[in-house]
Amino acid sequence: MAINTNTTKRSRERDQATQKKIHALAEQIARKILAGRDPVLEIPTRTRSNTNWNKKRGILEMGDATSERPLFDLKTAKQFMQTMLHASTIKELIEAEKTSSLRGVFYKAKHTVAGTKENTFDTQDESDPILEDLEVSLGALREELHVFAENRGAMVGNITLIDKGDQIDCRRMGSGGYALPSIVEPDVIQFGKCEAKFVLHVEKGTVWNRFNEDRFWEKHNCILTHGAGQPPRGCRRLLQRLNKELGLPIICVLDADPWGHYIYSVIKQGSISLAFESTRLAIPDAKFLGIRAKDYKECDLGDAVKIDLTENDIKRAKEIAAYPWFEGHKGWQKEIDLLLKNGFKMEVESLITKDISYVTEQYVPQRLKAKDWLD
Amino acid sequence: MAINTNTTKRSRERDQATQKKIHALAEQIARKILAGRDPVLEIPTRTRSNTNWNKKRGILEMGDATSERPLFDLKTAKQFMQTMLHASTIKELIEAEKTSSLRGVFYKAKHTVAGTKENTFDTQDESDPILEDLEVSLGALREELHVFAENRGAMVGNITLIDKGDQIDCRRMGSGGYALPSIVEPDVIQFGKCEAKFVLHVEKGTVWNRFNEDRFWEKHNCILTHGAGQPPRGCRRLLQRLNKELGLPIICVLDADPWGHYIYSVIKQGSISLAFESTRLAIPDAKFLGIRAKDYKECDLGDAVKIDLTENDIKRAKEIAAYPWFEGHKGWQKEIDLLLKNGFKMEVESLITKDISYVTEQYVPQRLKAKDWLD
Repeated sequence: MAINTNTTKRSRERDQATQKKIHALAEQIARKILAGRDPVLEIPTRTRSNTNWNKKRGILEMGDATSERPLFDLKTAKQFMQTMLHASTIKELIEAEKTSSLRGVFYKAKHTVAGTKENTFDTQDESDPILEDLEVSLGALREELHVFAENRGAMVGNITLIDKGDQIDCRRMGSGGYALPSIVEPDVIQFGKCEAKFVLHVEKGTVWNRFNEDRFWEKHNCILTHGAGQPPRGCRRLLQRLNKELGLPIICVLDADPWGHYIYSVIKQGSISLAFESTRLAIPDAKFLGIRAKDYKECDLGDAVKIDLTENDIKRAKEIAAYPWFEGHKGWQKEIDLLLKNGFKMEVESLITKDISYVTEQYVPQRLKAKDWLD
Repeated sequence: MAINTNTTKRSRERDQATQKKIHALAEQIARKILAGRDPVLEIPTRTRSNTNWNKKRGILEMGDATSERPLFDLKTAKQFMQTMLHASTIKELIEAEKTSSLRGVFYKAKHTVAGTKENTFDTQDESDPILEDLEVSLGALREELHVFAENRGAMVGNITLIDKGDQIDCRRMGSGGYALPSIVEPDVIQFGKCEAKFVLHVEKGTVWNRFNEDRFWEKHNCILTHGAGQPPRGCRRLLQRLNKELGLPIICVLDADPWGHYIYSVIKQGSISLAFESTRLAIPDAKFLGIRAKDYKECDLGDAVKIDLTENDIKRAKEIAAYPWFEGHKGWQKEIDLLLKNGFKMEVESLITKDISYVTEQYVPQRLKAKDWLD
């Protein structure tokens, strides 16, 4: 492994900062106990009602509401213990300079409490929210807690990355590409030389293949990414870093359906469940290039591209139209209106009905040139 | 793009061979029509009853049964038309030197038949099997028909790949790795320098992260792959090529449950639905290193690793034990017996209960040294 002293230093500093927070949490509990008072955890509330839309910043934010988690309360005693157990696992992970999956952390803490038949955790469903509680309580991203989710998505284009000291030349990654890791914080991944002027983010690997095969990123000097559907945190965080640190516009090519609109919404404003991380995940100026409801007429598409909206699609479309960040947005209101009026959705892949490379050679280049997108 | 003349030549030769097959199919139909006879397609049967276990070769094979698909029969007329449509799309893809996804091919052929309200295809579920029919009829892999499935899985290790002319040094792929493409045929991917002595294939990306973070492939001179669950065709085909062309043993680390056993079975012998491709996908000497049912005792694991077998697990385990290739295999019969006797399954990730890196530093190295695996 190539050793990068700066990276190692940055990692250590980050880890020390996180360790301090864990120590502070433990100390606060220990002090209360030593003083003869009941130990209580104060956990910020991760609910819809405690999520605010910050119009000025263009992101979802978590409010100030918190809830108490006392040890000496039958309702919360178990969660108190679970929170402490996970904090201890994280301390161990950081000390060992290792990371673990969500499932690994669950297993690490899972055991039968001595002298009882009670398990600390029964399923991972109990474990993941406790980790999120720790993220918000400590004010540290899961990545800073050394915990990763699944790896998903890929990348090619006119940029060099340094990943754990290895130079990744994304201009020379063949047909496969660079597999996006789950943890992409600056101590793991740094940006090297970058000629790219923007990022084209597509929904699916199959669409990404079309763009990569046609070497779109070379012809249009960009970076090409996909997140295999709803992009995982690693992919979103990397897109945000490319946007914030390198100033690259993030331009999305997603399906013309409520699912595509929702993916865009999450990339742009963040999600309710991860509102506490919007500042590090959301990209308020991300653009939605297409597929647009108007494309059926504008691109003279045939009936083959139509997929009828289901009851659920219609319900979802209306919900999305009522999101505060779409509500006052004329372009988006028109977009969703037309989707509902059309009565059908369209997938990016359906553009093949025009020509195999219509999407890479005509559709996207024309829209880019005209700056014809929603933002 | 680096131009590799040999690769281009190889691609052309492959494509010409496939085109010849498509022409031959079309000619045969045209001749029948011109001779005033009924056009009929002869399609090899892809069913369990036409799948044979070739004990000597150690793979599943397709039998000789075929079924007729006449145009002038109400039951088969639509499928006849669909087969011709897809053959035509494939011809077009090959001529354009482009590839498409399964969904793309579906869209390409989907339209309303002129003068009727009948669609050529209504859903992709109708389309995919027709493509498989063409694969077996033409004796050409889907990859040779220029059609790809999803990309899934990643790779790092002591090998250099050449992917569309780009050198991919898998020793320097950081934390993310090389994303496995869907088409890995020799005209797309060639093997460069390889020091690795074997391939360690793990089930999930999260486990792969543990092995990559601990640089297992460097310490044990191997290649590290995962297929994000049941490995897709691209991953299986690449593993088979590494095994056949470079002589590397494929050693699998999967969960101790019927799903893990099934994944191994498919990697090793092939699957019923793709039996016609076993010779190009199956790896008869692939090894199952673990997790083993005996590990609960042998590794002194705690109760935290136990996940109760469900009714369905028990049913699946018995089905797998009855597979002809497991039926006569003492080791596998013992393995499945013990799994059922234990009454619980175990995941690779549960080994974290011993130590964060127990799996990479003790479990796998010890089993490798002792050659303690099932094959």
